[in-house]
Amino acid sequence: MATLCDKYLRTRSLNAPSPIYQFGPCGRIMKNSTVVMTIQDPASQRLTWNKPPISVLVIKKIHDSLVIQPFIDLVRWLIWEKKMSVYVESAVMDDPQLKTNQLFQPFKDKLCTFREGMDDLTDKVDFIICLGGDGTLLYASSLFQQSVPPVMAFHMGSLGFLTPFEFDNFQDQVSNVLEGNHLPHCLPNTAHTLVILTHESYYTTSGHAALTLRSRLRCLIVRKNETISAIEKLSKQNTCHLVLNEVVVDRGPSPYLSNIDLYIDGKHITTVQGDGLIVSTPTGSTAYAVAAGAAMVHPSVPAIMVTPICPHSLSFRPIVVPAGVELKICVSPDSRNSAWVSFDGRNRQEIQLGDSLRVTTSIFPVPSICAEDQISDWFDSLAECLHWNVRRKQRQFD
Amino acid sequence: MATLCDKYLRTRSLNAPSPIYQFGPCGRIMKNSTVVMTIQDPASQRLTWNKPPISVLVIKKIHDSLVIQPFIDLVRWLIWEKKMSVYVESAVMDDPQLKTNQLFQPFKDKLCTFREGMDDLTDKVDFIICLGGDGTLLYASSLFQQSVPPVMAFHMGSLGFLTPFEFDNFQDQVSNVLEGNHLPHCLPNTAHTLVILTHESYYTTSGHAALTLRSRLRCLIVRKNETISAIEKLSKQNTCHLVLNEVVVDRGPSPYLSNIDLYIDGKHITTVQGDGLIVSTPTGSTAYAVAAGAAMVHPSVPAIMVTPICPHSLSFRPIVVPAGVELKICVSPDSRNSAWVSFDGRNRQEIQLGDSLRVTTSIFPVPSICAEDQISDWFDSLAECLHWNVRRKQRQFD
Amino acid sequence: MATLCDKYLRTRSLNAPSPIYQFGPCGRIMKNSTVVMTIQDPASQRLTWNKPPISVLVIKKIHDSLVIQPFIDLVRWLIWEKKMSVYVESAVMDDPQLKTNQLFQPFKDKLCTFREGMDDLTDKVDFIICLGGDGTLLYASSLFQQSVPPVMAFHMGSLGFLTPFEFDNFQDQVSNVLEGNHLPHCLPNTAHTLVILTHESYYTTSGHAALTLRSRLRCLIVRKNETISAIEKLSKQNTCHLVLNEVVVDRGPSPYLSNIDLYIDGKHITTVQGDGLIVSTPTGSTAYAVAAGAAMVHPSVPAIMVTPICPHSLSFRPIVVPAGVELKICVSPDSRNSAWVSFDGRNRQEIQLGDSLRVTTSIFPVPSICAEDQISDWFDSLAECLHWNVRRKQRQFD
Amino acid sequence: MATLCDKYLRTRSLNAPSPIYQFGPCGRIMKNSTVVMTIQDPASQRLTWNKPPISVLVIKKIHDSLVIQPFIDLVRWLIWEKKMSVYVESAVMDDPQLKTNQLFQPFKDKLCTFREGMDDLTDKVDFIICLGGDGTLLYASSLFQQSVPPVMAFHMGSLGFLTPFEFDNFQDQVSNVLEGNHLPHCLPNTAHTLVILTHESYYTTSGHAALTLRSRLRCLIVRKNETISAIEKLSKQNTCHLVLNEVVVDRGPSPYLSNIDLYIDGKHITTVQGDGLIVSTPTGSTAYAVAAGAAMVHPSVPAIMVTPICPHSLSFRPIVVPAGVELKICVSPDSRNSAWVSFDGRNRQEIQLGDSLRVTTSIFPVPSICAEDQISDWFDSLAECLHWNVRRKQRQFD
Repeated sequence: MATLCDKYLRTRSLNAPSPIYQFGPCGRIMKNSTVVMTIQDPASQRLTWNKPPISVLVIKKIHDSLVIQPFIDLVRWLIWEKKMSVYVESAVMDDPQLKTNQLFQPFKDKLCTFREGMDDLTDKVDFIICLGGDGTLLYASSLFQQSVPPVMAFHMGSLGFLTPFEFDNFQDQVSNVLEGNHLPHCLPNTAHTLVILTHESYYTTSGHAALTLRSRLRCLIVRKNETISAIEKLSKQNTCHLVLNEVVVDRGPSPYLSNIDLYIDGKHITTVQGDGLIVSTPTGSTAYAVAAGAAMVHPSVPAIMVTPICPHSLSFRPIVVPAGVELKICVSPDSRNSAWVSFDGRNRQEIQLGDSLRVTTSIFPVPSICAEDQISDWFDSLAECLHWNVRRKQRQFD
Repeated sequence: MATLCDKYLRTRSLNAPSPIYQFGPCGRIMKNSTVVMTIQDPASQRLTWNKPPISVLVIKKIHDSLVIQPFIDLVRWLIWEKKMSVYVESAVMDDPQLKTNQLFQPFKDKLCTFREGMDDLTDKVDFIICLGGDGTLLYASSLFQQSVPPVMAFHMGSLGFLTPFEFDNFQDQVSNVLEGNHLPHCLPNTAHTLVILTHESYYTTSGHAALTLRSRLRCLIVRKNETISAIEKLSKQNTCHLVLNEVVVDRGPSPYLSNIDLYIDGKHITTVQGDGLIVSTPTGSTAYAVAAGAAMVHPSVPAIMVTPICPHSLSFRPIVVPAGVELKICVSPDSRNSAWVSFDGRNRQEIQLGDSLRVTTSIFPVPSICAEDQISDWFDSLAECLHWNVRRKQRQFD
Repeated sequence: MATLCDKYLRTRSLNAPSPIYQFGPCGRIMKNSTVVMTIQDPASQRLTWNKPPISVLVIKKIHDSLVIQPFIDLVRWLIWEKKMSVYVESAVMDDPQLKTNQLFQPFKDKLCTFREGMDDLTDKVDFIICLGGDGTLLYASSLFQQSVPPVMAFHMGSLGFLTPFEFDNFQDQVSNVLEGNHLPHCLPNTAHTLVILTHESYYTTSGHAALTLRSRLRCLIVRKNETISAIEKLSKQNTCHLVLNEVVVDRGPSPYLSNIDLYIDGKHITTVQGDGLIVSTPTGSTAYAVAAGAAMVHPSVPAIMVTPICPHSLSFRPIVVPAGVELKICVSPDSRNSAWVSFDGRNRQEIQLGDSLRVTTSIFPVPSICAEDQISDWFDSLAECLHWNVRRKQRQFD
Repeated sequence: MATLCDKYLRTRSLNAPSPIYQFGPCGRIMKNSTVVMTIQDPASQRLTWNKPPISVLVIKKIHDSLVIQPFIDLVRWLIWEKKMSVYVESAVMDDPQLKTNQLFQPFKDKLCTFREGMDDLTDKVDFIICLGGDGTLLYASSLFQQSVPPVMAFHMGSLGFLTPFEFDNFQDQVSNVLEGNHLPHCLPNTAHTLVILTHESYYTTSGHAALTLRSRLRCLIVRKNETISAIEKLSKQNTCHLVLNEVVVDRGPSPYLSNIDLYIDGKHITTVQGDGLIVSTPTGSTAYAVAAGAAMVHPSVPAIMVTPICPHSLSFRPIVVPAGVELKICVSPDSRNSAWVSFDGRNRQEIQLGDSLRVTTSIFPVPSICAEDQISDWFDSLAECLHWNVRRKQRQFD
């Protein structure tokens, strides 16, 4: 039995301890090595580098004049101090506030540009820096439909769910992340000792930034009458959408309620009658899903959330299912209208009777760098972004 | 990238596929072998036996005359047909309806009895059969504070969350479970083939019963002024409580709202002002937590739920955190009254200012045998027990 | 002080008893006769007629073959037995299922038809009968933007919120309603006596049908730059929309959240950020509002409900305000997009920055005839349409 | 039809305009003068006095040192400047912080004291001033089980739901209320003119304080086997409880769920299985009921709210019913345990099978003086006490 002593000595963990697979004197789990996976504790995930990163993609919030100056400061520093190649979207160069900004001219020509949907960034970008709101990270996610470079996201004002870093003294913070691999003191030998001394020191002295691997959902629309081979082909052609927050199925412009069938692992689970259905990651639990009434799920819980939008039923409470299931969503045969799908708020399209949407967890998460650690970052953002249980002390209830 | 083809070939899984740990050309997770764990996919968990089970504990719902006859039928069959040793609680022998029942007399003396809290069942019981409601499984859980033998739970009427089996032809069903180990065809080699053919065949032809490992929470009350060494001693003395549904902290008989502080991994998360707080397992998400407004979480999601009871705050939405965290709950220094703790509705006791309740996931789950599989059993119980999204077809909304 | 005796003698009431306006020895309400109104207890509202009704509008659900035969039976009986003038919408005559129905031919030419939006039904229709779902009553409401004739609504299958009557033996039921004025025994003198004997007898023996006066909301869109005089003109031109369920303001096809400002009686109350806002009558509380999370409000509570749709705030609980307030809703100056308004699901239109929507309670309710009485009809529909608190008896929680 | 012009000319109102009782050419409401009541618009309720108030009851929050100085300042001023008789509870004189306070000694002997439950305050108190939290107003309500003198409630710090006044310059504020009757300009003739000019002037220039008449619920426990005559006797003996917030029925110390039957006007409405049931006034909708999930109802809506506490049902949404109904609540015959009742958190007592609790709206409201007006006071308290829809502006969602 795990003693308290054991407990205090073990490394702080987000994974539950492995369960004992022996049940009474003779019962046990049948071993099946083909379905075993090894996972590293999310709490111990640290960013490191194979080789020093040399190219960085900078994504800035558009139409926000507050971001102009930080953007210029950051890019200048990356180019001149850090000698990095800096990528920006070509549209950025057309921003009138930048074009006319004198400070921007000197290094304007040093930037590499790309056009969304036309230029392939795969293997070109080592590191991503976002400046602005949560939307910049969603945009970064959309640019990388396979492996995503590590993302460091700065908010410009108040903390976001996905943007934990303050921009003040960005130089030190970015340097720390970039040079994480240079630090000599690795964790393995010292983890146990450290942790028993102080919890905080474990996270802050290691020299390597903590990472939250934000799971994404892999979504594929299969049209009526498509053959299996066609589906495979489509799949290879990257027609999947990877979403970081959620995929939404709704009634679109129709004034009528949708009837949407939900299947999990091939089993018909329920029919949704209402405005629609949200299938979200834990990251997305604090986005649209929370507005529709979902519970908030920490991004390191391996799960998928299913939340109805304004269901015409008193009893359609949101559910949380294991991350490994496959969901299939389609228009009910008795529905009078089609449905509309959108992916992290983009690529809106109609699905007709006979089409289906397939959703599973992707193997390509977004590696999002923590400002402090996974627990602190999340609860800080709940308090600041959602005022979660922020109350006035109720003197008057004495 | 995982192709659709890959997806259809891989075994149906509840675990998400392992994420790719390479992020862009140079980023990657720092390997740390001390915090790696291997887990077997919950969807593939099958019960097997080291040696044939010979002793069985039968738990029957008390004060329910409907259970008398099934109990007699079952016990008689276990003793005479299966030649097993049958344990029952000694209180059962005093049940007036049994005492006077002629059918019970012939084998009454063959039963082994134990007294709760006095006799130790550890290593004596190979298998557990429950007859009645969800309460019988909670009771079984409370009897085994460490390893729990596999549990097969029959409902007497309508499906429960924890009691998936129908009693009709119990003989075949129990035999199948007991003899699972005799079947020759193991899965490993054939899994891939099977699954691509039909999803259902995978689960039903294997011959081994599917298991849900229902996680439990390990709860320890640390009294004010207890030293670390005392705590360790307590811990070793099994003063922990393992709960299958939830541990509840409430204001008890006090008319005033409680002020309860919640810490996660040492960080102060929030203060609850209201009737109390529920910390529950996913299994418990459909018990008291759902009544308090929680989302429903599938039992194979490795998570802990924190749900306030009637919070005096509009914004205290329930949260779901990773199964590996440690929660500490204590009375706030500014609270005018103490709080009360209960464990799966039992062992109610007061905690004062200075005391604390520590909660983590236990390594001893309850291995609960599925009637069909983890997904089907759960959704069937949601529909039947909670009428989850059971609606009338809304003809009139045309 | 009201004694229990008083209480049992007074007529069953839905209005609270008049409060005592004397507060302690010297305080009292300042009398102000200009703002006094007299109201009759909703529980005592009975339908009567100035003169025998001779024209009846029959509204049938469209595209539902189950309604064809009842429609024919009803119309034939109204024309031949009751000698009434029967109005139907002209589109009904084009229904292929009717056109080819032999039973319909004999009296087809006896029907009066009207075209929605072209022919004025005011003063032409004494009585309305609806056949089908709740939508038929919404449609009836939309046809009469001022005084609405009494409505008797039959469901075809299961009870609706607005359709309490079963079609079986419709002849007796319709006759009772039409002849209510012929019954000699009026209530006034006998009410007190009756009620002390049995509650039910009061409602069922009176001979006059109970009425629910379903309040409607009077909605006016005021465009930017419209002058007061123009507004008055518009108002006189019947450009108001009267809704029976709700007026909805939402983000329309925009992917961005709306920012909508809400004013009550000229005071800025809050800004909604989310999918939108529902302003509903008590009748509408069980329609879209309940899907968005509202409480259910009995139709005789004089109130207006304000319910956000998927608000991006944990603390935006629905509110219920007095029926007499005026609401003003407009696009926030800092909103990046316009909003869309619809009235009982119809007349969808855009509002821009500078436009506003004004909502008050109309003086023209929909007089909806009860099958039993206001309390029974409402709770029966909650149970049947929404499964309100319909549970399985929880044997297993023993 | 009401024109916009009409609307702007009519006095701001909380009552809806009287509906037109003519429905189409011949339908109308049957007149029944016995069930007609006249009500004055809540928005026009102003406090006036038959004669100048001379006695004032001061209620101060206990155990709160912040209230000591304001209490002394207020009482001294009332006695010496206003020449009023001041009543305080006798327990106040024993407060150690007062006893030793030098400032309190000079007029200590001028105070009239009373003992709760022993001395009758009826007809002795003209006016009530509360200092502290909402609890002081609940206490004031409990002291006056029939007519309640006007109450002016000061908060000591932040706004409460029931305590709208700031203590700064209390002298002017109290004088204004006390002298309201001296102002010469009455409303009737000028109301229309005023209101069209400016909404605010209507409320602030009238010289008379706006009143919210907070309805109370009249609760009577009828024990098993009590005869009707005994009930009447009890009723006359003032054994009723009048609650300002709510009456709560819960399972008390029992670990089992309660089964509670709810009847409205004699009809069985539903059975509650859960922690209990709250029956609240609109005032109480922002107290315990809001914690249990209720919508917030403005105090001038004539309604009663029924809210379950942690119901074991997904579909038990709170309901709002007309203020005039009678509720009966009793333990279900199939419940295994009794239930407990408490009235505004006091007088907790058990009800057994066969007992029943009867609840109706009382004719004795609490006349609570507004700081501004009914609408502003309520929304200000929602924002400050519950942070209702208080959000951060979401820059990052661009």
